[in-house]
Amino acid sequence: MSNHFGDRLCEAVKTKNTPLVVGLDPVYNRLPKAITEQKEMNDEFDVGSAVDAVFDFCTQVLRIVAPLVPAVKMNIAYFEKYLWEGVECYYSLVSEADALGLEIIGDVKRGDIGHTAEAYAQAHLENPEFAGLEDVIAPDAITINGFAGAEGIIPFADSATDQGKGVFVWVRASNPTAAAVQDFADASGKMMYENLAEIVGEIASQNKRIGENGYSNVGMVVGGTSPEQTTMLRKKYPNVWFLVPGFGSQGATAADCLRFRNDDGMGAMINASRSIIYAYEKPQYKQEFGDNWQKCIEQAAIDAKIELAKAL
Amino acid sequence: MSNHFGDRLCEAVKTKNTPLVVGLDPVYNRLPKAITEQKEMNDEFDVGSAVDAVFDFCTQVLRIVAPLVPAVKMNIAYFEKYLWEGVECYYSLVSEADALGLEIIGDVKRGDIGHTAEAYAQAHLENPEFAGLEDVIAPDAITINGFAGAEGIIPFADSATDQGKGVFVWVRASNPTAAAVQDFADASGKMMYENLAEIVGEIASQNKRIGENGYSNVGMVVGGTSPEQTTMLRKKYPNVWFLVPGFGSQGATAADCLRFRNDDGMGAMINASRSIIYAYEKPQYKQEFGDNWQKCIEQAAIDAKIELAKAL
Repeated sequence: MSNHFGDRLCEAVKTKNTPLVVGLDPVYNRLPKAITEQKEMNDEFDVGSAVDAVFDFCTQVLRIVAPLVPAVKMNIAYFEKYLWEGVECYYSLVSEADALGLEIIGDVKRGDIGHTAEAYAQAHLENPEFAGLEDVIAPDAITINGFAGAEGIIPFADSATDQGKGVFVWVRASNPTAAAVQDFADASGKMMYENLAEIVGEIASQNKRIGENGYSNVGMVVGGTSPEQTTMLRKKYPNVWFLVPGFGSQGATAADCLRFRNDDGMGAMINASRSIIYAYEKPQYKQEFGDNWQKCIEQAAIDAKIELAKAL
Repeated sequence: MSNHFGDRLCEAVKTKNTPLVVGLDPVYNRLPKAITEQKEMNDEFDVGSAVDAVFDFCTQVLRIVAPLVPAVKMNIAYFEKYLWEGVECYYSLVSEADALGLEIIGDVKRGDIGHTAEAYAQAHLENPEFAGLEDVIAPDAITINGFAGAEGIIPFADSATDQGKGVFVWVRASNPTAAAVQDFADASGKMMYENLAEIVGEIASQNKRIGENGYSNVGMVVGGTSPEQTTMLRKKYPNVWFLVPGFGSQGATAADCLRFRNDDGMGAMINASRSIIYAYEKPQYKQEFGDNWQKCIEQAAIDAKIELAKAL
């Protein structure tokens, strides 16, 4: 496997023949009853019981999707709510996903400057060197928040570059009120997120960040843009991987998401979370597979891949 | 004690007669030798040893500063680098600080939308209801990142309001390159951070957020502004608490910081971190107190209070 995150994404997308990323946002009371009715995992308000259920569910999801998709995105908020017990679970799942050959994106959206940014990068991108934590693996990439500008991005980008890992800077969000901050425009009509994208694009284009396939290990998280905006971003930053949220539950169509791809078929990772991991709640899958929730998830991932392939 | 964070800050600032906040950014290899030379804490690369040293240092700092200052700010990045072991240490220190009567600001800068924001708020603002974590206390307030707009702020603000706690939205950073993002200006000259401040100010002004002293439980983190900008922000948002970083090591003067106060003497919390907790590295304190690092920290906190009082 390549020691460059951008190259590893290219290989993984080719091997699995899809840019689909499955997002893990585990919420206890949406887990399959087959898990939460087990005696040792049936108490939502006992931290050990709840975390065991989340871990059991996520490991099964990872095994189901590993043959199908190049990468998973793990949203750390759903683990942090269980405090340190949840954080331990998060890292255990990173190791599980790594052993299954998946690229792992930690959706942590950390953002700060200087030594603080370095400490976050150490936590979230660097495999720990501490005795007692030798077996722990950090994700292949994380999402970060670039609000503080270059000094808030470079410490993460440098750590990632040193480790053969990656970062995705949150440039444009898909929620309605994001526009009030991110579309704030200057006299020329340039929007705040476009300005931020320029800062990220400059860091991403540094020689040391670029892999053999021409992609940087510094990418952008972009959702909620118009087709014109998407096309503009894609053209302007040819060497950037875009992580595109919102496919499935959040309403972005396959065609919307695929506009982020380059002509080589690379450059966009398309994330679907709840529409896949909770597929067993949907009548269409329930009818077909009954209580076999694993089959529902597998079929939903296959269907999402087909939907993306059709839209090409 | 009041069940409103803004009111508690007023009481605490009056009681301790200072707006000084001591920031805890513990870095192992800057800890006093008296701690790191102890057998069970002398291995930087053993996670248990390192975390024990950090915990020992921080609990002593908390006891030293508790009689002197109204609040402490705990930077979670320096704990997260020790993964879940560090996160457990962080919450243990929150409990220690709470038992000492300090207001505790968790410097976590979390930022996301919707359910993810709610999960982060549950982790960082709400005392856990889980069996197994009953004794854990979450901070009185946290810093958050408002990049996603109102939908990224309200879930945190609502959780804080329900819990009698607070949030400080990061509005303007003090690092040089922050300006490239945060001073991005529209045709009228309004800057991106001013636009963000308006969004925060509107949320902060909602009736349910305002305490008996007229202050909101939703504040702003603001550093690096010019005197004119500071005065403008203070006038425009009279009911907001500003958390002002950079006093001491980062170079902001007492007079700069105190411009954030209202005429009632309230409305600004002034943070100093490294200049106080590592005071024993400074020749002026070393000469006076020798190896008594605790005395160095105590004197540095007293000196910072005096410097702020003189600047009034």
